[in-house]
Amino acid sequence: MNFTVATEKLLTALQTVSGMVSSRAPLPILSGIFFQIENNSLYITATDMNQGILTSIPVNVKYPGKAVLPAKQVIELLRRLPDIEIEVENNSENNITTIKYMNSELNLHGFPPDEYPMLPDLTEENSISVSQNLFKKMLKQVLHAVAIEEHRPIFTGVLLEIMENKLTLVATDTHRLSLRTTTLEYNFESIINAVVPGKTLNELVKLLNKEESKINIYITENQIFFLLENIKIVSRLLKGNFPNYKIAIPENIASEIKLNKSEFLNAVDRALLLSNPTMQKVNIHAQNNILNIYLNSDKGAIREDINIVNSGKDLKVGFNGRYLKDALKSMENEEIYFQLTGPTTPALLKPIDSNEYLSLLVPATDQFYEGNE
Amino acid sequence: MNFTVATEKLLTALQTVSGMVSSRAPLPILSGIFFQIENNSLYITATDMNQGILTSIPVNVKYPGKAVLPAKQVIELLRRLPDIEIEVENNSENNITTIKYMNSELNLHGFPPDEYPMLPDLTEENSISVSQNLFKKMLKQVLHAVAIEEHRPIFTGVLLEIMENKLTLVATDTHRLSLRTTTLEYNFESIINAVVPGKTLNELVKLLNKEESKINIYITENQIFFLLENIKIVSRLLKGNFPNYKIAIPENIASEIKLNKSEFLNAVDRALLLSNPTMQKVNIHAQNNILNIYLNSDKGAIREDINIVNSGKDLKVGFNGRYLKDALKSMENEEIYFQLTGPTTPALLKPIDSNEYLSLLVPATDQFYEGNE
Repeated sequence: MNFTVATEKLLTALQTVSGMVSSRAPLPILSGIFFQIENNSLYITATDMNQGILTSIPVNVKYPGKAVLPAKQVIELLRRLPDIEIEVENNSENNITTIKYMNSELNLHGFPPDEYPMLPDLTEENSISVSQNLFKKMLKQVLHAVAIEEHRPIFTGVLLEIMENKLTLVATDTHRLSLRTTTLEYNFESIINAVVPGKTLNELVKLLNKEESKINIYITENQIFFLLENIKIVSRLLKGNFPNYKIAIPENIASEIKLNKSEFLNAVDRALLLSNPTMQKVNIHAQNNILNIYLNSDKGAIREDINIVNSGKDLKVGFNGRYLKDALKSMENEEIYFQLTGPTTPALLKPIDSNEYLSLLVPATDQFYEGNE
Repeated sequence: MNFTVATEKLLTALQTVSGMVSSRAPLPILSGIFFQIENNSLYITATDMNQGILTSIPVNVKYPGKAVLPAKQVIELLRRLPDIEIEVENNSENNITTIKYMNSELNLHGFPPDEYPMLPDLTEENSISVSQNLFKKMLKQVLHAVAIEEHRPIFTGVLLEIMENKLTLVATDTHRLSLRTTTLEYNFESIINAVVPGKTLNELVKLLNKEESKINIYITENQIFFLLENIKIVSRLLKGNFPNYKIAIPENIASEIKLNKSEFLNAVDRALLLSNPTMQKVNIHAQNNILNIYLNSDKGAIREDINIVNSGKDLKVGFNGRYLKDALKSMENEEIYFQLTGPTTPALLKPIDSNEYLSLLVPATDQFYEGNE
């Protein structure tokens, strides 16, 4: 393999795939990035065996070939070079890749390319197409509710459901749930349910630009593919049954409160100053026109008041302050509904002008899916 | 104590002193900031017992008093507020301070102010005055060579020496040494030698603005005071003898190399990509017109060439790459001298047009002060 390319172009391509390089690789070769020259393009792949990404850039090819280069050193070298033309040459006998720049050269020990795992080929079974801009927003609204801990792996994923002409994303860690829907351009005959690892979607979010171009999504029984311009992402789907989110969403609202998101968010944020790792419960008292936000701890006491319109009961409820903050941050508009159902039952956050998004919060210390699997 | 003040003004003052709040306080009260109202000003003090800082701001006083508030919570609250007028009130009976803002209030558990250690009073014995701008530059040039580890405490300080009309700062961790001098406006009769903790000077650097205002420095037998505008910093001096730096600086130069600092720095930076924690030695080979910079490790090999003018011998020397990088970064000008004395003896980095600064580097693995205490 021998090609020349501008450093900035190669660096951009490597940064696109670098999020999927395994940092704690079970196989050392997965700390590398797979390079392959085909025709006049360089194809670059990174994978951790569960998810993978492929991109390509045009380069000036002297002769084709393939190589696996240590991700960290190549990327760090390019970051430390001005935007110049460099030559990349691989010796397939010893897997040493030489990068020539200015009057200097770097020889890197690589890995045998034939041992690098190949990404599965795209199967064009069920597919949808959404604007990147919209899909990015949708992902950001649900990803905060994905579970980090893996003792119940299904909760580390996001449910992607297609039914008729409706695409729904749902995430929950059992303490909170977020749900976002949108209308697709055409009707689907079959119902599609796929649980996509949060890790993959967190990488995908970074690559979705804000332009109005489309992302194409292909879903098979065990895999999902995301295609955008010259990037292909593939991920295994999570096995297991995602809980029935519909029964978790309460219908009988005791207090429907209209409030300003930022005022509430800032008050919760300040209240959390007095929290400690074992005490993050922020209390609210919804009265007629005032919402008190308060927290007492060994550090002191805080009480904030914000103006609201409450068309229901006077209620006191306690929430995990961090979850409340995440949920408020995920709301797009300033004017929102905060719907309470009672002191120990879930609350909802909703935009006032749309049914496409909701965020559910269980009062502190309760779990709404407990024993429901 | 009761006063009102604008959040931004108070936050700026608290951030000025916050670097000297003890994060790992031997006494819990040192995690607090001391507030005292006198006349129409709020005086704010932070100390870790070895060093301390005092600043003041005008406030609207309702009644005087003093209090010790937990630094973290006060600063974080102010960061989370818009720039509004707030009221701060302390209850001296229970040491609870109430901060009132908008429709809300925070009650913070503080500490008994009478238990807070007082900073020593300024003694106007030996004093010098330097422009803040110059002193900041001087400190930045020497502080990188200060030892971090404290098994030989004297090396964690910077020697401040005044002799006749010359101010000299010297720092060394025994592997490298940096020395910066400047000329004072008048002659001193006595010789002053003070070793100032690097920690104090690192805080001071942050507070020196780039304007042409002066910093006044007062030195007593055991303490040093730095005065700038409305800030007073005091620090204990380190006890012990700072090594005689003069005998460490070589005089017989074997190769005097003129080179471009950035070219050399960038090459060393790239060579370090292949280093690992046990192998940070970067080799140089100074030839007539070319300097080779090279490093071989288990990750690969790198060789960079830069153009130089060498008026001396052809020499090969190895240096700790991180120390070489720090020293190069501390040079102000692009064109510098790199003076080699031999393969195992110290090298010097100097500006080409000034004798006021030098940086000394011992070849890798040797220590030039070993057994010299």
